[in-house]
Amino acid sequence: MPAQSAQSVQPAQSVQPAQSPVTVLGLGLMGTALASALLKAGHPTTVWNRTASKTGPLAAQGATPADTARDAITASPLTIVCLTTNKDVRALLAPEAESLAGRTVVNLTNGTPAQARELAAWAADHGITYIDGGIMAVPQMIATPGAYILYSGTDEAAFATHRPTLQALADTKWVGKDPGLAALYDLSLLTGMYGMTMGVAQAYALIGSEGIPAGEFAPLLRDWVAAMTDAIVPETAAAVDTGQHLTDVSNLAMNREAFTNFLQAYAEQGLRTELFEPLQGLLDRAVEEGHGADGLSRLVTLLKQS
Amino acid sequence: MPAQSAQSVQPAQSVQPAQSPVTVLGLGLMGTALASALLKAGHPTTVWNRTASKTGPLAAQGATPADTARDAITASPLTIVCLTTNKDVRALLAPEAESLAGRTVVNLTNGTPAQARELAAWAADHGITYIDGGIMAVPQMIATPGAYILYSGTDEAAFATHRPTLQALADTKWVGKDPGLAALYDLSLLTGMYGMTMGVAQAYALIGSEGIPAGEFAPLLRDWVAAMTDAIVPETAAAVDTGQHLTDVSNLAMNREAFTNFLQAYAEQGLRTELFEPLQGLLDRAVEEGHGADGLSRLVTLLKQS
Repeated sequence: MPAQSAQSVQPAQSVQPAQSPVTVLGLGLMGTALASALLKAGHPTTVWNRTASKTGPLAAQGATPADTARDAITASPLTIVCLTTNKDVRALLAPEAESLAGRTVVNLTNGTPAQARELAAWAADHGITYIDGGIMAVPQMIATPGAYILYSGTDEAAFATHRPTLQALADTKWVGKDPGLAALYDLSLLTGMYGMTMGVAQAYALIGSEGIPAGEFAPLLRDWVAAMTDAIVPETAAAVDTGQHLTDVSNLAMNREAFTNFLQAYAEQGLRTELFEPLQGLLDRAVEEGHGADGLSRLVTLLKQS
Repeated sequence: MPAQSAQSVQPAQSVQPAQSPVTVLGLGLMGTALASALLKAGHPTTVWNRTASKTGPLAAQGATPADTARDAITASPLTIVCLTTNKDVRALLAPEAESLAGRTVVNLTNGTPAQARELAAWAADHGITYIDGGIMAVPQMIATPGAYILYSGTDEAAFATHRPTLQALADTKWVGKDPGLAALYDLSLLTGMYGMTMGVAQAYALIGSEGIPAGEFAPLLRDWVAAMTDAIVPETAAAVDTGQHLTDVSNLAMNREAFTNFLQAYAEQGLRTELFEPLQGLLDRAVEEGHGADGLSRLVTLLKQS
């Protein structure tokens, strides 16, 4: 268990016993995986879900099902919330402000930075410690190596207190005192993944248009995208941070010219072009606005609303 | 030099001397890099460009500038063409069919599979051996490790004959006898890269909206996109090849729900949403058409024109 070994090498941080009680509200796939990881790490775990039947499998693993959210909240100093939306979180927690006062809420529900800040402000008004989190894993990856959760919140000391418990879920990464930062990092990382996914989906559609098995193409695609990621991610960062977008490698004018072949090829091969048309539009705009000699890093600045 | 060592371990393929003469037509950044690599590998290299002044630096490296494309073509059994578009290639080569007859053309100009097949058919009509190629490198990567060029054409024996020469440019990957395949593979790989690039650009724009330096975020982004590429590329291939898109990990209904946060966050953070709106549309359509329980691999099939 990574969580156990992380605790054993950080005795100074283990101010709580390893078996600190925890409450989990929301038992979808992710909430269930979180509660299960806490139980496996030896934490007395109280669980609650709007549909009570979801508590069954966790009770069989040793969890204590609570009849109400209030009962669950008052069972532990730390409540982890994992619902579908932050609107659900607000609706669930608003009537429980008194019970939550003096306790800590870690909200692992997907949301935006603005939503996290709004919840943090509400919590501060009611004497509740609020930590927002973004899970960089699917439920099956919880408590496995490579998974991590981003955290942010005004009270870094509270995070330090609960970190040994949170390590049972996945590696922890503190990203700052602005409660919106965990969501910002989470959405930014997943944005990178969704872009890659669009590219991979269109690539398989294109290679498949001539009947080539995807599995035959997969190693080439993986190696190429990985190599380009290794090159483009740091190069783009350097250009963005210095504001020096000029390049002698592959400028936007060349990319714009080359890219017309892509949309044409998609159409010729019987594919839809919708996922990549906006990139052509953005490349056109970049050149029209005088950025033809810049590299792809210039696109970052062009994605700001003007 | 990779080219030399590749030849030394493949004596059976080295039916030509290592210093076989080569002609290069088109001396943009890429054509110049190709000619330079051939010269460094010891090939007598004839060069031609519409704007003759481009031949100067190569002549200084030992290239023979030709006054006309015809003179250049007749100087070598192998002509490598690297122009801006295949329309340019057609316009340049059409009047030279007689000079090219009995010789081999390797066309490394960016284009579509349909364009490559059209050029191959024209070449066949005139007794010209045509090999199409797709360069998986920027000019600065030519003749360096990691760069490769995809080739396809009806005459695989001609490719084998010229392969030792072509190895001077970059690693060679033969992808089949359909002349359109090199372009298909090339466009498919670059499609993966462009998708990743869209994701990286939007990710940096999003993290930058709170003033976080891109360089601070870059290692997290690179590691995350690389890890997701390693997971998603082979998983998607397996699903596409078996037609089994059902998943219990991260289905389209869940992705559709989660993705609304992304467009909202982009807008809240003052960013344009244009690059990712079509993905929301595609996820909506996937769920509406009954694929909500399928994984992201289903998007590959939804990108076909119905």
